[in-house]
Amino acid sequence: MATVVAVADSALEQAREDAATAVEAALDVLLPGSDGPDARLDEAMRYAALGGGKRLRAFLVMQSAALFAVSPTCAARVAAAVEMLHAYSLVHDDLPSMDNDDLRRGRPSTHRAFDEATAILAGDALQARAFEVLAEPDTHADPQARAELVQAFAAAVGPRGMVGGQMIDMLAEGKELTAPEVTRLQSMKTGRLIEFSAEAGAILGRAPLPRRQALFRYGRELGAAFQIADDLLDAESSTEEMGKTAGKDAAAGKATLVALLGPVRAREQAQLLAAQAAAHLEPFAERADLLRALARYVVARRA
Amino acid sequence: MATVVAVADSALEQAREDAATAVEAALDVLLPGSDGPDARLDEAMRYAALGGGKRLRAFLVMQSAALFAVSPTCAARVAAAVEMLHAYSLVHDDLPSMDNDDLRRGRPSTHRAFDEATAILAGDALQARAFEVLAEPDTHADPQARAELVQAFAAAVGPRGMVGGQMIDMLAEGKELTAPEVTRLQSMKTGRLIEFSAEAGAILGRAPLPRRQALFRYGRELGAAFQIADDLLDAESSTEEMGKTAGKDAAAGKATLVALLGPVRAREQAQLLAAQAAAHLEPFAERADLLRALARYVVARRA
Repeated sequence: MATVVAVADSALEQAREDAATAVEAALDVLLPGSDGPDARLDEAMRYAALGGGKRLRAFLVMQSAALFAVSPTCAARVAAAVEMLHAYSLVHDDLPSMDNDDLRRGRPSTHRAFDEATAILAGDALQARAFEVLAEPDTHADPQARAELVQAFAAAVGPRGMVGGQMIDMLAEGKELTAPEVTRLQSMKTGRLIEFSAEAGAILGRAPLPRRQALFRYGRELGAAFQIADDLLDAESSTEEMGKTAGKDAAAGKATLVALLGPVRAREQAQLLAAQAAAHLEPFAERADLLRALARYVVARRA
Repeated sequence: MATVVAVADSALEQAREDAATAVEAALDVLLPGSDGPDARLDEAMRYAALGGGKRLRAFLVMQSAALFAVSPTCAARVAAAVEMLHAYSLVHDDLPSMDNDDLRRGRPSTHRAFDEATAILAGDALQARAFEVLAEPDTHADPQARAELVQAFAAAVGPRGMVGGQMIDMLAEGKELTAPEVTRLQSMKTGRLIEFSAEAGAILGRAPLPRRQALFRYGRELGAAFQIADDLLDAESSTEEMGKTAGKDAAAGKATLVALLGPVRAREQAQLLAAQAAAHLEPFAERADLLRALARYVVARRA
């Protein structure tokens, strides 16, 4: 049994590297530089989106698409759109009037490497470009699939999703939230885009609704597990290990499940969520083994 | 002849009021308030998008859609998406690190009425919601039309369009631009969204390409004429008349065609562009009379 897990873990590592490589190549093509007067905007967009991050969302898109034999080229475009969106959210979150963070992915955050106006515009442009990529015919031959991608993506990242979660997060600083309130906030702020990433393969594959829902629910529990694991790392790691400012949730008075439940119960909760996530993959049998391995990985990781 | 123009002008006024009423109603439905912890975000989005502006873009969507007998309900949704996008661009442009403007549409700009973080997030959320509305089945029964709307819209407002233009505008402050450079900047910053607004009706109407291109070109010249007229007003009006800070282009050292050509030649140029815009409407005969009247109006208006 230990051997089986070890094999799955090395296969997971390889698949994650493959997804990171594929999305990096797609981003490099989809976010070209330029020589014109707007070169600075392109440069800032590339700085924010290329060359970094765990690419968890890209991996989910690539793996869920593989379940339905979707072309990796199409899947990589969707993965790139998701990572563009994620990058924009980090750029705006790091702004002085938001989390005011100078460090991201081990480098100066975008408004430090450029300036505040450029960072705001680079984020705005990354969001627009993400939607454009999803809507372009190269992403899927069937316009119905493209329209569904755009609609689900927009719902995930808009006022009832990611941006709404960030707003609640800003308002919650220094306030005492309950565990259900923290869970709701995080499911909006980070969970919704992770759900979309897992669901995207089913949309690309024109899968029947139960399959799409199974992946969506996998994404929901995985995202919740991932968030707790991230908060545990934030509380326990150094800034150097993280590549972003560590311990900042506590410093900002932000409520996390780790603070509310304590690290032991929080870790138990993350493990439970990861197991529930894996359970949603039953319809896909062994073809979803890498997604199962990811669920184990997100709660076991140390960086 | 004078009588004919007078009739067209009053018809234009009525049609503009009708479009403003229709888009206001659509925005009110598409941007609902809420009681939850994210109520502040909804409130800021509504503050930015509802109850103001000339609704030029909404009018263009409604009128171009009418040329192809598109349902006004569908057209109003697209008009609302365009106005959401326009509102987000104004919210972000007014931020302290951008144009730092405290006044918009005769009221405190969004970051003054709320705060900077809320304004950034409200803009981000308005952009996402605009894309969501375009992709929703209520906007058009044919997913091909929805995907085309999203693609054209994204291209208009992304790094090669509106946001790219704003970046060039920021970098150009205090620099001496030539007339062609100013024209290119403005065609990106404000022209592209106006082009899309004029083109949108043809996309909704599944019109043949030449019709779509005719409207796109009408929008291009109209947008350029509108921009010069706007710069003339900025240079000649008081802040009270404008409802936004007047004379700020000159104060910020921003190049405009008015500054480069002088007001007399700039006005002649605007009139020429308006006439060229109207000429593109020839295939639509008298059914495009309101769009022709608009082209006359944008260069004649005094506020």
